[in-house]
Amino acid sequence: MNFDIPALDEEAMAAALARHGRLAKPAGSLGRLEALGVRLAGMSGSCPPPIPTPVTVAVFAGDHGVVASGATPWPQEVTASMVGAFAAGSAAVNAFARQVGAEVVVVDVGVASDLPAHPNVLDRKVRRGTDDLALGPAMSVDEARAAVQVGADVATRAVADGAGLLVTGDMGIGNTTPSAALIAALTGRDPIELTGRGTGIDDDMLRRKGKIVAAAVERAEGMGPLELLAEVGGLEIAALAGFVAAGAAAGVPVLVDGVIALAGALVADALTKGAVRPYLIGGHRSVEPAASAALAHLDLEPLLDLGLRLGEGTGAVLAVPLVQAAARVLTEMATLDDLLG
Amino acid sequence: MNFDIPALDEEAMAAALARHGRLAKPAGSLGRLEALGVRLAGMSGSCPPPIPTPVTVAVFAGDHGVVASGATPWPQEVTASMVGAFAAGSAAVNAFARQVGAEVVVVDVGVASDLPAHPNVLDRKVRRGTDDLALGPAMSVDEARAAVQVGADVATRAVADGAGLLVTGDMGIGNTTPSAALIAALTGRDPIELTGRGTGIDDDMLRRKGKIVAAAVERAEGMGPLELLAEVGGLEIAALAGFVAAGAAAGVPVLVDGVIALAGALVADALTKGAVRPYLIGGHRSVEPAASAALAHLDLEPLLDLGLRLGEGTGAVLAVPLVQAAARVLTEMATLDDLLG
Repeated sequence: MNFDIPALDEEAMAAALARHGRLAKPAGSLGRLEALGVRLAGMSGSCPPPIPTPVTVAVFAGDHGVVASGATPWPQEVTASMVGAFAAGSAAVNAFARQVGAEVVVVDVGVASDLPAHPNVLDRKVRRGTDDLALGPAMSVDEARAAVQVGADVATRAVADGAGLLVTGDMGIGNTTPSAALIAALTGRDPIELTGRGTGIDDDMLRRKGKIVAAAVERAEGMGPLELLAEVGGLEIAALAGFVAAGAAAGVPVLVDGVIALAGALVADALTKGAVRPYLIGGHRSVEPAASAALAHLDLEPLLDLGLRLGEGTGAVLAVPLVQAAARVLTEMATLDDLLG
Repeated sequence: MNFDIPALDEEAMAAALARHGRLAKPAGSLGRLEALGVRLAGMSGSCPPPIPTPVTVAVFAGDHGVVASGATPWPQEVTASMVGAFAAGSAAVNAFARQVGAEVVVVDVGVASDLPAHPNVLDRKVRRGTDDLALGPAMSVDEARAAVQVGADVATRAVADGAGLLVTGDMGIGNTTPSAALIAALTGRDPIELTGRGTGIDDDMLRRKGKIVAAAVERAEGMGPLELLAEVGGLEIAALAGFVAAGAAAGVPVLVDGVIALAGALVADALTKGAVRPYLIGGHRSVEPAASAALAHLDLEPLLDLGLRLGEGTGAVLAVPLVQAAARVLTEMATLDDLLG
């Protein structure tokens, strides 16, 4: 897997920083949106940067063999049902995407069941769900590589079709378990501490889940990112890694959602030796403990913190207008010279 | 000043809460947007609530005699210049409003200088700036009442014209000083602790500003809200109080910005014995210490915390899509029954 990711354009960033100093406002008074605007200038190589639009939200769906070991109370069939809801436009991520004017692309990269063909669902199934990572490798390295390629293809295609901002989305019953394992392995943090309650599990299930995560991480000790992904990961997480890496390679900002997206982003970070980082924007701080560990590792401070724990890309989609606003002020605001001169 | 503010519709709120429990997502997984959606149902008296749109941002501008006592490094002329920028659509609040599809209304309620007539600026000047509150009352009680009425008229007119969401904006060089005084007086908090650096002042100026605020609060001890507003307030703050109260009286959500808007909201809260509270939505947590005191007093947790300290309504405008999304999911999401039934 080879992603050729450009460095940020230092000249455009210096110009954006200087422009922020000349705009008709006290220095620094737009807070975190100023640094974000400077970074958008660096990604686009121009100052002012274009407003990042149109926006593509890619929701990658996959199933997880680990549900058989009891890491979630939800039946696996929910993954397929939710893909149906995404395709019909009736899930939370669809409502939020309409709110912010984003397009939702749904990708079956590994749902366990056969899905009815639907014009809004891209069939890129690599396999029918993963094997149970509590018992052995979740998938083969070739399968992991293929799933990464699916995500990369979706990003590359979206950018070729004009997308100026990519947003990560995900669906997969059981996917906080591989996410916690990947994040623990890639940050070196304690697997038990990073295991969270996902969409809501009791203390017994949390203990069982923590043990599964810890054992998986121990087994994966010393593996490279692709081997790790195959051993303890998931198909939609692999696709997210490819989506993030290919988005960065295309020079486009990638707005990352919660713990699943962050697991994918960490894999992309490892695969590209950190080259993806300048292109990542944190959308929403998930309540999952592994999310905060990944954010700290990637040096990301998310734009929102609203207590969401749904996934699908919902948190990141809500942050889209903030990213666009950060670029917009650099284009549309008067300078002090305009005003007083 | 009499504002007849309806209580929230308990039946609509119960229906919205029940609907959230049936939507195709784990219980509570949309975090703070769920309670907000329930409240919007209560304001509108219907479940699902309408998406709050169109959006009117009212930017009230006024000047402050206290600038003569050295509470800010900015010259008073900046207020008028910024009104020009708002009218021309080239300030930060205009850029953000375009981002979220909101209309900006600019109201001269007390700019010190004569402003050129402009179709985008509503001339409702009550007087040319306030007197120096460091030396005596900022204005008369009649003037304070007239300024409150200006804000109320703007809200009432906007709602009559169809607005479904009102957003507070403000401009007035020196206005963090009266805001700190009002908030200290109305919350009982220490005036020195609540005095902040506004758009950026040094330690000497901060000490001077703190003394001015403390002396003003002491002088206003025991006053009713309208007398207090006249003694230590500002014309745009009075208008904001009227805007908030009339918005609530019209049953429309009011998204409040930073410390200036919160001072106005606290006055509205005092004038209406708390009846405005259910209609207030916190937009952005200002870094000014008085803002957090006011938010705590009003039991508001703002939706955003991005380090903005510009005013104009910028923080609140950025939160508009979040408020709309909170209503939108209640209308547009499938229920679990739809999905699995």
